[in-house]
Amino acid sequence: MLGVTILGNNSALPAFDRHPTAQVITLDDQLFLLDCGEGTQMQLARYKIRWGRINHIFISHLHGDHYFGLPGLLNSMGLLNREHDLHLYAPEPVYQILMLQFDAAHSKLPYKLHFHPLTDECVLVKTERWQVTCFPTKHRIPCFGFKFEQIKPPRRVNPENAVRYEIPASFYDRLKWGESYTNKKGDLVDNAWVTDPAPRPNSYAYCADTIYDEELIPRVKGVDLLYHETTYLKDLAERATARFHATTVQAATIAKKAGVGRLLIGHFSSKYDKLDIFEQEAREVFGNTSLALEGVTYKV
Amino acid sequence: MLGVTILGNNSALPAFDRHPTAQVITLDDQLFLLDCGEGTQMQLARYKIRWGRINHIFISHLHGDHYFGLPGLLNSMGLLNREHDLHLYAPEPVYQILMLQFDAAHSKLPYKLHFHPLTDECVLVKTERWQVTCFPTKHRIPCFGFKFEQIKPPRRVNPENAVRYEIPASFYDRLKWGESYTNKKGDLVDNAWVTDPAPRPNSYAYCADTIYDEELIPRVKGVDLLYHETTYLKDLAERATARFHATTVQAATIAKKAGVGRLLIGHFSSKYDKLDIFEQEAREVFGNTSLALEGVTYKV
Repeated sequence: MLGVTILGNNSALPAFDRHPTAQVITLDDQLFLLDCGEGTQMQLARYKIRWGRINHIFISHLHGDHYFGLPGLLNSMGLLNREHDLHLYAPEPVYQILMLQFDAAHSKLPYKLHFHPLTDECVLVKTERWQVTCFPTKHRIPCFGFKFEQIKPPRRVNPENAVRYEIPASFYDRLKWGESYTNKKGDLVDNAWVTDPAPRPNSYAYCADTIYDEELIPRVKGVDLLYHETTYLKDLAERATARFHATTVQAATIAKKAGVGRLLIGHFSSKYDKLDIFEQEAREVFGNTSLALEGVTYKV
Repeated sequence: MLGVTILGNNSALPAFDRHPTAQVITLDDQLFLLDCGEGTQMQLARYKIRWGRINHIFISHLHGDHYFGLPGLLNSMGLLNREHDLHLYAPEPVYQILMLQFDAAHSKLPYKLHFHPLTDECVLVKTERWQVTCFPTKHRIPCFGFKFEQIKPPRRVNPENAVRYEIPASFYDRLKWGESYTNKKGDLVDNAWVTDPAPRPNSYAYCADTIYDEELIPRVKGVDLLYHETTYLKDLAERATARFHATTVQAATIAKKAGVGRLLIGHFSSKYDKLDIFEQEAREVFGNTSLALEGVTYKV
């Protein structure tokens, strides 16, 4: 399962109850946080996301609307007595800023924070089941996009067969990952008898803040779901370029040329109170486009 | 006129749609911001406060729930093309943190930010009409309270007389501050003919985060309105002391011993979902007590 839950879809200036950028990525049993604008911890609470389960946080770049919620979130995780490790992937200066903030508060996190500075295009973290890579985008300051990929998706439990072989529900999770079951009598129940093959692996790419840049195309080629910013409507292409942002038509063009499954658009300028036209404009170029709406989970 | 508008009344962990500490003080024609927890800029927008008019921001101490909203607010003021100077009074390390954040974003504020580090008990800013002083409170880290005082409150325009003397409404503000009016014929209308004497000066003291501390009493003696934190109910006095916080009964005791006009209590722990009992407990010791409720303006 791959899902993207939007916590904030607005650009720099919060407006119309739209919040700065933050997304939660669900990849099978993993939760990742992607960017962390001011108020992200409140948004996580609002949408009842079990954020104790987030073990990896990725920050694309150091404009405030993408990370000013980070110190508060890390603090609150500490106040809630988190003890398990947390991994933070972000541009280098974040670390010094956080350390100064913790020092000033005389506070020490009760969990281990592992900091991984973003420097080049690379695999940031890889397990048997999934991986996350980063790639540069073209913005006013150093900025990174991220790609989340299943490597080995879970098999599907066939509930009828599982019941017939008297496999307890508590073992289903292990079935998904390919284990066979030995029952109380010592008989082996082969995994293949009670599961169906895994579907093909899914992928999600997040292009952060970026100018229209065809170099992104090979990097996000063929992903199931692509997030591309659309700070402006198509009539403001010049302003978008001047500010290293993109328009609806530009985002949809990247989606089309990269042959992705579905396009998600967001990072709307606070000059717009209504969003429908963003979707209309993008769909003229790439049909399978959706607005990134706060509180909604987009599943692949 | 002296008013205190509550933007956040909760302690460290946001909960129950209660926000971390922030207050707006209205003193005649001035707006001050007092502490700036995460999300303060959203709260300012929610309660339609004209925050372009805030020229002085006071930060009591560097626990995140009192200042993590500051960089976002300063940034947004820039995005809204603020050009007039802003004064920030805060513990020293804030400045380095902000400078690192601005550097990382390659951003430069379009207005001048004057930083005034808090060091000792002193007058922070004084004009003919009002002054703000700070005083230390006892908390886990260096922490300051603030006192806002009218020095010369505005006189009251007598509308009947002002109309009789044909004084244009646009001149009323100058009447309040004691000016006399010269009409088109060149006749002087003496200020005293069209205004009533000013009421006595008002004052507000904010004790930030603090343990029960009788040294506060002389500092806040006789103010019209006192804010004192009540992180806990009276049964948790031990926990309050251990964490350098205060209870309802302790806050009310300070108010009573200092002979203040009215007590405002806040900084409620997120362990409490209902607040009524805070008011009840405090009122048993000091009758004129009110809960600091978000969005409400408490006037003197």
